[in-house]
Amino acid sequence: MSVDRPQGAEARETARIEAFSDGIFAVAATLLVLDLKVPHDAAGGQALARALAAQWPGYLAFVTSFAFIGIMWINHHRLFTLIKRSDNMLLVSNGLLLLGVTFVPFATAVLAEYIPRAGAPVATAVYSGTYTVVAIFFNLLWHHASHKSRLLDRRADPEMIDAITRGYKFGPLLYFVTFVLAFISVPASLAMNLALAIFFALPSQNPLVKRKATARF
Amino acid sequence: MSVDRPQGAEARETARIEAFSDGIFAVAATLLVLDLKVPHDAAGGQALARALAAQWPGYLAFVTSFAFIGIMWINHHRLFTLIKRSDNMLLVSNGLLLLGVTFVPFATAVLAEYIPRAGAPVATAVYSGTYTVVAIFFNLLWHHASHKSRLLDRRADPEMIDAITRGYKFGPLLYFVTFVLAFISVPASLAMNLALAIFFALPSQNPLVKRKATARF
Amino acid sequence: MSVDRPQGAEARETARIEAFSDGIFAVAATLLVLDLKVPHDAAGGQALARALAAQWPGYLAFVTSFAFIGIMWINHHRLFTLIKRSDNMLLVSNGLLLLGVTFVPFATAVLAEYIPRAGAPVATAVYSGTYTVVAIFFNLLWHHASHKSRLLDRRADPEMIDAITRGYKFGPLLYFVTFVLAFISVPASLAMNLALAIFFALPSQNPLVKRKATARF
Amino acid sequence: MSVDRPQGAEARETARIEAFSDGIFAVAATLLVLDLKVPHDAAGGQALARALAAQWPGYLAFVTSFAFIGIMWINHHRLFTLIKRSDNMLLVSNGLLLLGVTFVPFATAVLAEYIPRAGAPVATAVYSGTYTVVAIFFNLLWHHASHKSRLLDRRADPEMIDAITRGYKFGPLLYFVTFVLAFISVPASLAMNLALAIFFALPSQNPLVKRKATARF
Repeated sequence: MSVDRPQGAEARETARIEAFSDGIFAVAATLLVLDLKVPHDAAGGQALARALAAQWPGYLAFVTSFAFIGIMWINHHRLFTLIKRSDNMLLVSNGLLLLGVTFVPFATAVLAEYIPRAGAPVATAVYSGTYTVVAIFFNLLWHHASHKSRLLDRRADPEMIDAITRGYKFGPLLYFVTFVLAFISVPASLAMNLALAIFFALPSQNPLVKRKATARF
Repeated sequence: MSVDRPQGAEARETARIEAFSDGIFAVAATLLVLDLKVPHDAAGGQALARALAAQWPGYLAFVTSFAFIGIMWINHHRLFTLIKRSDNMLLVSNGLLLLGVTFVPFATAVLAEYIPRAGAPVATAVYSGTYTVVAIFFNLLWHHASHKSRLLDRRADPEMIDAITRGYKFGPLLYFVTFVLAFISVPASLAMNLALAIFFALPSQNPLVKRKATARF
Repeated sequence: MSVDRPQGAEARETARIEAFSDGIFAVAATLLVLDLKVPHDAAGGQALARALAAQWPGYLAFVTSFAFIGIMWINHHRLFTLIKRSDNMLLVSNGLLLLGVTFVPFATAVLAEYIPRAGAPVATAVYSGTYTVVAIFFNLLWHHASHKSRLLDRRADPEMIDAITRGYKFGPLLYFVTFVLAFISVPASLAMNLALAIFFALPSQNPLVKRKATARF
Repeated sequence: MSVDRPQGAEARETARIEAFSDGIFAVAATLLVLDLKVPHDAAGGQALARALAAQWPGYLAFVTSFAFIGIMWINHHRLFTLIKRSDNMLLVSNGLLLLGVTFVPFATAVLAEYIPRAGAPVATAVYSGTYTVVAIFFNLLWHHASHKSRLLDRRADPEMIDAITRGYKFGPLLYFVTFVLAFISVPASLAMNLALAIFFALPSQNPLVKRKATARF
């Protein structure tokens, strides 16, 4: 209860949550590579090249999922520059978020397997649905932490907090659109997923998020 | 033996134990996803949806094990805000604990495979038995560290230490009940495992643990 | 905007990028071992020894890729002792770099499978091509960070910065040579890959890089 | 070149080497679980229990390898409380050490598969040989770092340094004995491996190492 104690304890607290989360993000992103399969029966150079090229849905899914996990990590990182305290609900909502991230390699494998086949819409829906759920958990975590600045750094800029809240509101909805699109047009759904990844990775292209980004970097 | 030396050395010491443990927890939690299998022969959207739905024991086991590992991590994290020194026995008991955590993905895979089959009670017993052993190792670690405050922060609140000791006593026993239950009723054993996970994740619901949580956050 | 605030925020910023990157590098390096296969049908000691020895392309690929990932990590580490600020483009270029690193275990598995077979040149080209792309992303990251010292530590030695820039220019070109060599001579391409790994790991053997190394250690 | 600069740079330098190494140790230890196979054809509870029990060589190898990796980590951790500076040779020897650690899950899988079969001596030799090589790399790293205290903390106790040097000398030789023993008696070789693990994990049981341990904790 001394002046410096809580300060140190707090830093330590969120630091270890971040370390554990970083571990999950990094492992999930790297496990994606296990979904790429070495062709076993290629009889020569051309056959191998063709077999590798035929795996394009796998590479596409690999890159999209890697981008998604990377962007989720950037966002997580961004929130935790503002979140300075922890409580049980933060641990639970962070755990739910990480559960969603851990599920991504499976959803990616399902997508890669079924893109060129009859089950493509269902596979795409599973994939987009996973992202929708992760986006919801992100909102859960942020709303819990930012409600009345409950767990935030007291010096955090209120305008920046509002900008994040506004930006995050759109996430679940936009990802839900990709989920619905899966049943109408698989390419449209996947293109929108990729567009969302690029959109969220390049906030400076977007007036809404630009402010937040400017505020932060 | 100077004034600032041991302080720094200590912080560094437990910091690296925590970093290594975080790595094991994070990898074990993420490897759980490898137990989910992509259905290979689904002929169309409905068939894929049915094949994915038929894997419900896998998802259930995935979520339960992820929750278990997450909660073990929270508890580990909690203990190491109090533990500030290390010795050989701490390294050994922490190693045993991590060995148990590393075994969880295997126990989960056995459970997911046999829930809907004749071997369900044995698979459930393996699963609950793993958790029982992890709970015993947690007690080992804590008793070693807290006995006469051997390795604890000298400023730690004695009441908080007692609350943890009291709370931990129940763990092995409760998990052992789920082990015995496996041979009587598989659903009851699994439900109790899930209930224990929720119970330990939401300490504020529980008057006994509330005190500890309040003291800490 | 106080004097000490940006300092702490900066350190924290690049620290977490490094932690996440370290995780990806470490997991990618360790996943390489999954490409080594246990021979299942060896009938006795000699048969097992022969079956293990027959896997020499796998061990060679394992060691080369491990060395490559290790050296990429050392270089990453080296750059981030100079890079002290972050922006969106740094996150994106670092993400692209990590995507390339994550792809290495797959390229390695393709190589190990096809070295002794007809598809060897294509497999070697995939492998060398992966390294070429990683080398390009390294340049992208460094040029973005070092252009007008945009994200560098203000106290960094300009001569050291120039030395890195000069040294990095050669990377993509040298790796591209190994890519082209793959179609002419597989052993020559692989030997050059291994030589590049040793070359970059032992900078003091090389007058160009020596200066940088001396400046740094 | 100011007074505080090198201090911070040094801490940062070895800190990131440790973080990367921790990642490799943690992932390698956790990947061991992938060698345990879920029995797929067990027709009932008893059959499953029998099939799981028949995997005893796998569990034994899992526990021994986990203990070995854990002890290597403790030793690594111990050395890096003394090592405070880095150079290229340290990075290379640390890389070789980590390469050996990464190989452990493969050697373990070979051992687990062949313990009950005709190839057992060769499999055991591969396993013990891996440990011998890791022990040699440990000596390489330590000799490079400690030679004329090249990279050590200037305040490190010379007696402690000597104690480590003396203790490490025996490692490669003792592990080499287990390698030779593999061809004479598989159980003797494995028992000695396990004994070495316990021996190195409980330094206080051993007068030679006790001194070092006392000095450190």
